[in-house]
Amino acid sequence: MKRPPVKGTRDFYPPDMARRNWIIDGWKKVSLRNGFEEYDGPIFEYLKMFQLKSGDEIAEQLFSLTDRGGRELALRPEITPTMARMINQQINALPKPIKWFSVPRLFRAERPQKGRLREFFQWNVDIIGVDDVLADAEIIFTTIDYLSSVGLTPRDIRVKISSRKLLACALTNIGIREKQLDPLYGLLDKYNKIPADTFEKMLPDQVPDSAAAKKIMDLMSATTLSEVPEIAGTNAEVDAAIQKLARLKDLLEQMGVWQFCDFYPSIVRGLAYYTGVVFEVYEFAQELRAIGGGGRYDNLLQDFGGPSVAATGMGMGDCVLGILLEEKGLLEKQLQKCQLDYFIACADKQYFQKVIEITAKLRRTGKAANFAYKPIGLSKQLKQASAQGAKECIIIGSEIESGRLVVKDMATGEQKTTELDNLLK
Amino acid sequence: MKRPPVKGTRDFYPPDMARRNWIIDGWKKVSLRNGFEEYDGPIFEYLKMFQLKSGDEIAEQLFSLTDRGGRELALRPEITPTMARMINQQINALPKPIKWFSVPRLFRAERPQKGRLREFFQWNVDIIGVDDVLADAEIIFTTIDYLSSVGLTPRDIRVKISSRKLLACALTNIGIREKQLDPLYGLLDKYNKIPADTFEKMLPDQVPDSAAAKKIMDLMSATTLSEVPEIAGTNAEVDAAIQKLARLKDLLEQMGVWQFCDFYPSIVRGLAYYTGVVFEVYEFAQELRAIGGGGRYDNLLQDFGGPSVAATGMGMGDCVLGILLEEKGLLEKQLQKCQLDYFIACADKQYFQKVIEITAKLRRTGKAANFAYKPIGLSKQLKQASAQGAKECIIIGSEIESGRLVVKDMATGEQKTTELDNLLK
Repeated sequence: MKRPPVKGTRDFYPPDMARRNWIIDGWKKVSLRNGFEEYDGPIFEYLKMFQLKSGDEIAEQLFSLTDRGGRELALRPEITPTMARMINQQINALPKPIKWFSVPRLFRAERPQKGRLREFFQWNVDIIGVDDVLADAEIIFTTIDYLSSVGLTPRDIRVKISSRKLLACALTNIGIREKQLDPLYGLLDKYNKIPADTFEKMLPDQVPDSAAAKKIMDLMSATTLSEVPEIAGTNAEVDAAIQKLARLKDLLEQMGVWQFCDFYPSIVRGLAYYTGVVFEVYEFAQELRAIGGGGRYDNLLQDFGGPSVAATGMGMGDCVLGILLEEKGLLEKQLQKCQLDYFIACADKQYFQKVIEITAKLRRTGKAANFAYKPIGLSKQLKQASAQGAKECIIIGSEIESGRLVVKDMATGEQKTTELDNLLK
Repeated sequence: MKRPPVKGTRDFYPPDMARRNWIIDGWKKVSLRNGFEEYDGPIFEYLKMFQLKSGDEIAEQLFSLTDRGGRELALRPEITPTMARMINQQINALPKPIKWFSVPRLFRAERPQKGRLREFFQWNVDIIGVDDVLADAEIIFTTIDYLSSVGLTPRDIRVKISSRKLLACALTNIGIREKQLDPLYGLLDKYNKIPADTFEKMLPDQVPDSAAAKKIMDLMSATTLSEVPEIAGTNAEVDAAIQKLARLKDLLEQMGVWQFCDFYPSIVRGLAYYTGVVFEVYEFAQELRAIGGGGRYDNLLQDFGGPSVAATGMGMGDCVLGILLEEKGLLEKQLQKCQLDYFIACADKQYFQKVIEITAKLRRTGKAANFAYKPIGLSKQLKQASAQGAKECIIIGSEIESGRLVVKDMATGEQKTTELDNLLK
């Protein structure tokens, strides 16, 4: 009887787990070398916490549950609210700036599609307490540092950068009222994700004035920063937002990664809480969903009952990234087969006890070692050794009576006899 | 405003995360060197799956949820049912024997107490397809290999071993009917966990015959194997079960770990699915709950709709283990502070751009590097370097004009001047 896992979730058999570990270990290594410290929170939190600031799309996709005490809980759909809660709780004790990363397992009750599952992993890096575009640059650098470390080049991926502040100024100039902005961002975020004519039909619901709607269409199709003041007019705030993006570009050039980046005024981000620089990472042909994205969210800690603290961050899921790495052939090439140091083979079953003893000793010195449970022929044991990826096969035969054994190099086939004591040193 | 996590769950701030990672990395390392491959399943499964074989205690403590499609789901309280489901699904494709390990995050809606939380991590190792006590020995060896690798000795912990088969024969000899056995195991498992007089009061509910109840009390207080036939009488089955335990002892001696072990007829295990050797690991004074335990469960795959396959395994949670390691002072001693390779300090703010460039380059060569965002004095930067655990501090001053910089060893305080190009090699 076959019982698959629940729709939208995954079973990780050892080869799938090796792939998941390779991606997550890469995220962790790059986070640490960029000076981030790891944190995590619980898998579930109070339902209310996720309804507060995550935006409608996420709030609609919550897996909710009620515990025996009648508490309304939800599986986390993102970790940023947990991070805000944790930082607010120890805001005075934590040394600033706070550079934190996490690789939470997240849950969204949406329809499973290519690159979107109901249960997935997401790399998060955040810098709290730095009100300077240098922190945004470091977040983008860290993102690119990972993607280039796994072999992706500027011809494979593009980091598309914009600014919520610039967009807010431009939309205000066009005549959008401040309280209209939040729902409008939700729609504009769809511009790159749905067919152009569908978008154009949805726009008048929120922007009935056709001249304003026309200008928004122009803004969304702009591919350079300089078009923004041309379309929406200029003032000191627009200038300041453009200056900030220009400094971001200088910093990314100094960091040696600008060749991965472009400015795209149409990048908005779906979540409600962004306030400044925003960015999304796409594969070059843009046939897949965004690989990751992030930006500045200076009000979030305050929204969660804490003080006003500057913050910027990035999230990247494992699903789209996995598809891209697979398509580019980068996964298979770099994924090392899990290797044993030694397979201990038994040339004659009278020495089986020795096999058990030596295997146990090797393991306790830190070596990965395995053996066959049943007395099978030597050639079958060598096959098992090879199937398990053993580097060397130790053959225990009559030499063991004088404390010696045969070591076979599984790559070259070369054999030599050595002292047991040497091996255990 | 302070918002703690939901009752029974934990926030992992960086120092807590470092501790969690140290424990889990140790489990993974020892699993791999003992020849186990890693797997994992989803966090939630169909509710029914966990009600099938997990025993009443677990079934009562499920966190259940209903998704939009009306599916009744539950957060996993253990991973063994998931493993059985996964193995059954690919039983013909998987090479035997199957040696798998996992470190699942698990959930039980019970009252939080010392060593018991609602959300925790549990190390699992399992061997599927080996109908030989050698596999049970290897599971016990792997358990001890980990515990001794973190510094625990036979004077800190004891592995208490028994056999469900031996217990079944003894109880049958005493007059217990076969269908009474399963509920009785649930009660007997409490013998070491509740006060003796409470246990004695509960026993007649299941065993009304006072002579039989008396013999069960004697069995439970037995501390050697030889007492079992003395109390319950003997036959070929009792002999065979005792012989198997004697062979287990021989194997654990050959593996060099018997000094951690004792036979205890009162070890039963709470879960319904055990069929043979069972064991539990306790700290010496037995003031804490069991650190871990396991045993043989030859019918489980069949219970989940698969073929009849021999199986044995072990589970160990992170909560009791963490308390024990803390009490013994083993955690603090071995937990290395997360270290930076370099902190890049700026001696004069005119060189700040160089600081950014060099930090980015070092990170991209794989070095962990950090810098101060704001132009603060050099002594403050050195303090930050030290607080972040940097091994060396690179000071960028006027020497950089000729491609040179100062490197300060943070442990010895020694300074030397070197070429930038050498550093980046």
